[in-house]
Amino acid sequence: MTELKDKPIGIFDSGLGGLTCVAEVRRLMPNENIVYFGDTARIPYGTRSRETVLEYAKQDVAFIKKHDVKMIIAACGTVSSTVGSIPDFAGSVPFTGVVIPAAQAACAVTQNNKIGVIGTGTTIRSAAYCKAIRGIRGDMKVIGNSCNLFVSLVENGLTSDDEVVRIITERYLTDIKREGVDTLILGCTHFPIIADAISEFMGDNVKLISSGAEAAKYAMNYLAGKGLCSDRKEEGTVVYYTSDSAAMFEEGANAFLGGELHGEVIKIGIDELTDQ
Amino acid sequence: MTELKDKPIGIFDSGLGGLTCVAEVRRLMPNENIVYFGDTARIPYGTRSRETVLEYAKQDVAFIKKHDVKMIIAACGTVSSTVGSIPDFAGSVPFTGVVIPAAQAACAVTQNNKIGVIGTGTTIRSAAYCKAIRGIRGDMKVIGNSCNLFVSLVENGLTSDDEVVRIITERYLTDIKREGVDTLILGCTHFPIIADAISEFMGDNVKLISSGAEAAKYAMNYLAGKGLCSDRKEEGTVVYYTSDSAAMFEEGANAFLGGELHGEVIKIGIDELTDQ
Repeated sequence: MTELKDKPIGIFDSGLGGLTCVAEVRRLMPNENIVYFGDTARIPYGTRSRETVLEYAKQDVAFIKKHDVKMIIAACGTVSSTVGSIPDFAGSVPFTGVVIPAAQAACAVTQNNKIGVIGTGTTIRSAAYCKAIRGIRGDMKVIGNSCNLFVSLVENGLTSDDEVVRIITERYLTDIKREGVDTLILGCTHFPIIADAISEFMGDNVKLISSGAEAAKYAMNYLAGKGLCSDRKEEGTVVYYTSDSAAMFEEGANAFLGGELHGEVIKIGIDELTDQ
Repeated sequence: MTELKDKPIGIFDSGLGGLTCVAEVRRLMPNENIVYFGDTARIPYGTRSRETVLEYAKQDVAFIKKHDVKMIIAACGTVSSTVGSIPDFAGSVPFTGVVIPAAQAACAVTQNNKIGVIGTGTTIRSAAYCKAIRGIRGDMKVIGNSCNLFVSLVENGLTSDDEVVRIITERYLTDIKREGVDTLILGCTHFPIIADAISEFMGDNVKLISSGAEAAKYAMNYLAGKGLCSDRKEEGTVVYYTSDSAAMFEEGANAFLGGELHGEVIKIGIDELTDQ
């Protein structure tokens, strides 16, 4: 029987965005095994209703739990904003989303107590980041804006140097910039891919917080605190599950990982999500 | 028992795009009843694999068939390109997609035998429009391009006068324009919403073919040929089903319909699609 500390970390997202969290987990804890699920047959989540996101999140967590994981990371801003910090359906498995980790990081970084948050429409409507930040520091000013098109632009391969990315960045971020924030939470795990365009618009004095990377750090601290970090010597394995084509997953993954997959991609049927 | 000719016409799409077909059916056949399904919990289809689109299309058709329809219109370019012209799973119910109707219309319109086709990635990869056009007229030159971002731009409410729409239009259509087509098939039912931007770029001499509107005409001709047009005197009813929020459906629908819904919107659970 596998000892608890040698069990994998489960990470999931609507699609490829959560790979920005996988990359950080691998950097911080290279000997941990990882099971990843990207729900590419139903991406995007961020334009759907709260009710639908909740249903999908339950199915995703149930799928991840089948892999006997020691911790679950919802590496998806929309899911994290919708399910709350400790959802019932995670059961006894330790769970973190990206909201609390990113909120904590932003509160630690800001000097002027003005924090911007960008995310999907469903994320911003939930006000989850705002509530999390105010729960940590009641005096923080939080300015949010929904940026649904960023997800589509990134998913379609557009990068920071693209004219359209620059125009949409200006459109989405002008109000937040005007408020003089010194910290900006990238509240959707797709957004780090266009961090250069965002940073260029906001200016060097604004610190960007990657919600996926912060969730990875949070998970490491949690596992270390519980004595649950693996002590295996060799590099950990990664298995990627995807609800749509494995080839399409592989094709898109590199941009998010900043490198190779280092693991197998397995396609699952949608019925494996809905019949559980 | 309802006479066959008084049964509704079933129309479905991945989301709201198929409403461009509903609008044309209502214009041409105002006394027909319509049952519409928009799979807004799983839109977009056009960036998914052929296998996933096929699975979703089967579920959509099964759902539509429960409503005892006299004909099914797949008012979705991606579905139409993927399932073929007479899919097995339609059974004995007459079925049309948008590909054959649009191909026929384009062949009838072109003067120089050069036809452009724009659609989603999955549509263009299938080469369905090209095969349909060549099946009608073997000497046609067909130039296609995939335009996935158009779907996201339209779904996010951007219109023809938006700078981003104009930039993306130029990017997607430059090669097709250079080939000197005189006819352009809007092979995705989302695209008529930005027809003005497309037309402005292509020039007045290029005729745009709306695939959804052509499918409506095709259905009318089919039903008339079979003596299956309703002879009810009063205006037909429309019932809209959607797999995500009814409120969000209502909010987005007007742009596609060019007017009011004239019917009720009913949310169905995803399990009604997957458990059949």
